[in-house]
Order: sequence, then C-alpha cells, then structure tokens
Amino acid sequence: MPKPSHREKILAEGLRVVHQHGYAGASVRDIVKAAGVPQGSFTNHFASKEIFGLEIIEIYLGNSRKLMSETLRNDALPPLKRLATYIDTIRDRRAKESMRNGCLFGNFTAEASDHSELIRLRLVEIFTEVQASFAYCLNAAVKAGDLPKKFPCEEVAGFIVSSLQGAHLLGKAHRSPEPIDRFKKILFDFVLR
Amino acid sequence: MPKPSHREKILAEGLRVVHQHGYAGASVRDIVKAAGVPQGSFTNHFASKEIFGLEIIEIYLGNSRKLMSETLRNDALPPLKRLATYIDTIRDRRAKESMRNGCLFGNFTAEASDHSELIRLRLVEIFTEVQASFAYCLNAAVKAGDLPKKFPCEEVAGFIVSSLQGAHLLGKAHRSPEPIDRFKKILFDFVLR
Repeated sequence: MPKPSHREKILAEGLRVVHQHGYAGASVRDIVKAAGVPQGSFTNHFASKEIFGLEIIEIYLGNSRKLMSETLRNDALPPLKRLATYIDTIRDRRAKESMRNGCLFGNFTAEASDHSELIRLRLVEIFTEVQASFAYCLNAAVKAGDLPKKFPCEEVAGFIVSSLQGAHLLGKAHRSPEPIDRFKKILFDFVLR
Repeated sequence: MPKPSHREKILAEGLRVVHQHGYAGASVRDIVKAAGVPQGSFTNHFASKEIFGLEIIEIYLGNSRKLMSETLRNDALPPLKRLATYIDTIRDRRAKESMRNGCLFGNFTAEASDHSELIRLRLVEIFTEVQASFAYCLNAAVKAGDLPKKFPCEEVAGFIVSSLQGAHLLGKAHRSPEPIDRFKKILFDFVLR
C-alpha cells in the first residue's frame, strides 16, 4: 500500500478535527498538527481554508451517499424499513462518538454559512440531494401501498431532513441519542402511519 | 437616560456579533471593536470569553422567556393558537434577518458545546425549560379537549424543540423561512390533528 500523501493526511485528519471542533474552532495549525505534516503543506495543497472546507464536505458526502444508496434508495428492501434503517444507522454512528460531533453538514451550516457563500451554496445542494433520497423512498412507500396515494412525499422529505438535523443538534447538547429516537418514534407513529 | 456602560455595550454588541458570526468566529477584538470600547474593557468585565458567552446566552434567554410567557404559557389564549403564534413569531423574527443568524442556542450547541462544558450544561437546562413550555401548552390543549386524552405531550414537546432547531438550521442554509413553515404545517396536519 503506498504511503498516504501529505494532502491525503491533511484531508483525513482535517475532516476529523473540523468535525470535532468546528470549522472556525479548528485552525490550520491544529489541522497540520493532527496530520503530522509541516504547516507549509497546507498552503501547498489548498488555496484557502474555504477550499479545504469544501473538500472535506465532499469526503463526508461520499459516506452519506453510500448510506443513502444502501438504505433509502435500495429497492431490494421494503421502503419504510429502509427509512427506519437509515435513521438507526445514523443514530448508531453518532452515538459511537457519544453524539459529540453531530452532523458535519449541520455544523457547517450553523457556523460557516455566514462566512462562506461557496460553502453555503454547496450545503444547499447537499440538503436538496438528501431530501430527494427521502422523497424517493417515500414515493416507493406510496407505490407499495404503505402510505396513502396523496401523501405529500416532497414536503415530508424536507421535514425529515430538517428534523433530523435538529435531533442531531439536541443529541449533541444532551450527549444522548434520545432526540433521534424520539424523532423516529413521532415520525412513524404520527406522520407515516 | 444614563449612558450605557462599557460592560453593557460589550454585551449588547457582543450578542449581535456572536449571533451573526458564531462564538469561535467572533473574536474578542471583533466584539470590542463593534462595542467601540478599548480591548482592555473586555478583560476588566469578563473573566473569560466563556463567561461572556454564558452572559449573552442569558440575555437571549430573557427574550425567549418573554415570548414563551406571551404565547405558550399565556392561558388567556386557546392552547394550539398559542403554539402557532409562537412558531410564527420566531419565524418572522428570523426572516427579518433573512434567516442568516438562526437561533443563538442552536448555534452555540453546534459549535461551542464541544469547547465549553459550562456552556453545554447551560444549553441543556435551557432546552429543557423550552420543552417544558411546549409541554405546558400541549397539556392545556389536552385539557381543553383539542388533543386526545392520552396524547404524549412530553415526547411531542421534545420533538418540537429539536425539529424547530433543525428548521432554523435549514432556513439558515437556504436563507428562507420555508423550513419553519413546512415544519409547522406537518406538525399541525399530522401530529396535532
């Protein structure tokens, strides 16, 4: 296996550090220190911290897309089961970090959407993509007869995106996955019944 | 009217700057500059940025409590109407700032709950207090016969707290109040019908 390049180390460790400490909270110095590379490496590989931020967002999105294709967009499984598995998987991943880190997209939105218009516009595209995956899954549930024919799939998909972000945030405050469990229960007991 | 003290100026302008740019994003230098006071003033009045952070959280909470007592806890109005008015008022306040700032409590949770255990624990208390106001309002709706007798008031109250935070966050990304309107619609159409 070839040794990871400085660029790869900065991206991998930088994603971890920014996820833990926030975009403004993690300085370039913190990032290169965690990556074990000289400070000059950062400026060699990234034109700015903003460009670096956009790159780690893409890496994180890669993981999210993998989960979405295994669950929400996985036509081999019953639609509402896919949605439940998606929420449970996210919950378990966050709970492994004691909920400390939350969702990188939500963190960036809270703190960086005011600083960087490039980052904000990318986040809007990503939230729209995630919403489309929920809508795909809900439409499949309608087709399967698990939800009423006139179910407002697009609207509920948007509601799931924002409510899940909020559940991550409250989970982060409480250091508990309970807000995610509670959201799932209300979603299935009231909205998707 | 007496002239505002340096301390008052730092708190008022500091709250504004931190709400706009985040806790890590707003440096002490930014805060004293906005307040128009010498940098030494900050350290004269606040033992640390963390203590200052806790103080601006209390000021913001004062405004939130006023709105909660005028709406959620206002027994002179029909309970579900109070809840609708609370959500609409928050929406209109955020929309005035083009949704740029979001909710200060949510912003602090996203970025500062990892940095300061004092701030995180205060946020947990505050979210619990807000949840209790929603539960108070929902219990009143049950008593008034507007919701079923066995309605899970406490659980739905917690769900409203986290989902509203998420709607603020998505609103901040999209620079649009639509996520808040959508949450309100789903809440009233599916959960509180």
